[in-house]
Amino acid sequence: MKKYNFSAGPAVLPREVIEKAASNVLNYNGSGFSILEVSHRSKDVVADMDNAIALVKELFGLGDEFEVLFLQGGASTQFFQVPMNLLNENETAGYVNTGAWSKKAIKEAKAFGKVNVVASSEDTNYSYIPKAYDIPSDLKYLHITTNNTIFGTQFQELPETNVPLIADMSSDIFSRPIDASKFDLIYAGAQKNMGPAGVTLVIVRKSALGTVSRYMPAMLDYKTHIENVSMYNTPPVFAMHVSMLTLEWIKSQGGLTAMAASNEAKAKILYDELDRNSLFYGHAVKEDRSLMNVTFRLHNEEFEAEFLDRCKKEGLDGLKGHRSVGGFRASIYNALEAEGIQKLADLMRAFEAEKA
Amino acid sequence: MKKYNFSAGPAVLPREVIEKAASNVLNYNGSGFSILEVSHRSKDVVADMDNAIALVKELFGLGDEFEVLFLQGGASTQFFQVPMNLLNENETAGYVNTGAWSKKAIKEAKAFGKVNVVASSEDTNYSYIPKAYDIPSDLKYLHITTNNTIFGTQFQELPETNVPLIADMSSDIFSRPIDASKFDLIYAGAQKNMGPAGVTLVIVRKSALGTVSRYMPAMLDYKTHIENVSMYNTPPVFAMHVSMLTLEWIKSQGGLTAMAASNEAKAKILYDELDRNSLFYGHAVKEDRSLMNVTFRLHNEEFEAEFLDRCKKEGLDGLKGHRSVGGFRASIYNALEAEGIQKLADLMRAFEAEKA
Repeated sequence: MKKYNFSAGPAVLPREVIEKAASNVLNYNGSGFSILEVSHRSKDVVADMDNAIALVKELFGLGDEFEVLFLQGGASTQFFQVPMNLLNENETAGYVNTGAWSKKAIKEAKAFGKVNVVASSEDTNYSYIPKAYDIPSDLKYLHITTNNTIFGTQFQELPETNVPLIADMSSDIFSRPIDASKFDLIYAGAQKNMGPAGVTLVIVRKSALGTVSRYMPAMLDYKTHIENVSMYNTPPVFAMHVSMLTLEWIKSQGGLTAMAASNEAKAKILYDELDRNSLFYGHAVKEDRSLMNVTFRLHNEEFEAEFLDRCKKEGLDGLKGHRSVGGFRASIYNALEAEGIQKLADLMRAFEAEKA
Repeated sequence: MKKYNFSAGPAVLPREVIEKAASNVLNYNGSGFSILEVSHRSKDVVADMDNAIALVKELFGLGDEFEVLFLQGGASTQFFQVPMNLLNENETAGYVNTGAWSKKAIKEAKAFGKVNVVASSEDTNYSYIPKAYDIPSDLKYLHITTNNTIFGTQFQELPETNVPLIADMSSDIFSRPIDASKFDLIYAGAQKNMGPAGVTLVIVRKSALGTVSRYMPAMLDYKTHIENVSMYNTPPVFAMHVSMLTLEWIKSQGGLTAMAASNEAKAKILYDELDRNSLFYGHAVKEDRSLMNVTFRLHNEEFEAEFLDRCKKEGLDGLKGHRSVGGFRASIYNALEAEGIQKLADLMRAFEAEKA
């Protein structure tokens, strides 16, 4: 039986990416060596890094005003590395608090400068994306979490402001086109839409750098990695390589416009069933629903374990909700096939009929 | 023709480790999913992490006074994370400068406290390990680089002192037994003797922590990772997994005593030929020669390109020396088979005969 991976992250990757990756673990580009044991200074690894950077620029339509970095440490490292590099102690950064990850970013930023939480949806357990709030024009930047993996909400439109945006896009990067002109910095742990765990993408506008005066260790200064094309130290070669393969796959599927169309169609299958089905209800408000993470519950919580068990038996894996929301979470990233989502919707319908 | 990988790092891994890793990229423990796409909270990944930690403790004979962490960012991150966690501004740390990596560690430490470079071999381009120097007893710690990848030197004995040692063991970890009682902290990028690039091992004595007063971002505080068994954020799952497989392989070979015996026998093949051969000479002084990285040159530098070319044709790969030493460097880590080293020694002998 074919299994479908609804895990929130690390998450489903395209099968052809996995097969190419496995092949290069055995014999990298026909060299006779594994990609796990070749020098990061070798011609092929340098070419992979250059290719990965070029693909990020091409997919997002980035001009020369942006630098693309492949780093380590995940979004959790970016929570402090961003303000360390961009925020002086006497300056103020704005943050929109849309969930657990935003909160961590806010906490880390407070050590480096002033933080103004301009809006929050904490009052309803983050079931919506705040709108129509005041954004002071003198903020150094405004930080948003474009998709909230745990709560299943997603910014459908960017905040209207001239303040440069900084976004944690860990769980919806490369799922749709973006307007790069509005951003000073974008970061994402790879392990949802763009690769395996162990590599972090950072896209930074060059002109945003060089404005803070504090001391930074070499490894934490974005300029170190820009000057060394992400090879100041040994990069996470394999995780970068698999990200490159995934970016190639996204391009081969038609790029971000095609991804967005596919993701909309896929999410519609599940949200339509959720709205029709009398047993289930969604956590996120309709207008802010995520196309990546669908959070939902049963009105009768007593059936939860049974439904999860049924899912597992049907090959639908990783659907248990995060403890802060409960119920279920279907993570339906770029690489998850529509058939798997249809199978889940069908099971919800069958479950409703049984319980009627 | 079989090829041999003399690369300094990322470096040769045991073939059976590579084959198991490739198999788990395709189908992790029979789950039907790739190890690249499964949750780090899944039972199997948690078991791998626990197993990797247990293997480190077993191989090094570590008691409960030590914690074992699998982090990101490489030794270059430890250069600042160590003093950030262990050195107050009014305290002094000692450093032995035995090469490029020691120098970077020294530079980063200066931002966090006082640094006393108690000894250095910079005067002879790091061709030896300093001995018989004064170590003030009030140092917070003494930092050494046990093996110097670039220069081909290695501490054969630990400094005699009651000051707790901190060691960068990136290029000789698990190549021989250690006396853990002398160390407060050991760190190593995995990509030489214990795995692929993308994961960093940190072993820390619990009692060494909690003595600094400065603010640390969550990701930089060792205590964060101890409390969360290296899963505060998404760890580099696959790099950790391959490290676990490599540790299992080391254990299956007979552990560190067997590794040391094998490494001594392997290095002897090459050093014996180096001492016999009239064309070549070594960079490191004999008593400090590394069992991991053999640095050597031709008296007549005009033959360098030709010899490298001959090596390549014989399937001996990655022998070009680092630019700061020149000539050749044979990195002969745990997983490099003796046949490859014998082949290199034979080629040196044949080359001598041709040029006679």
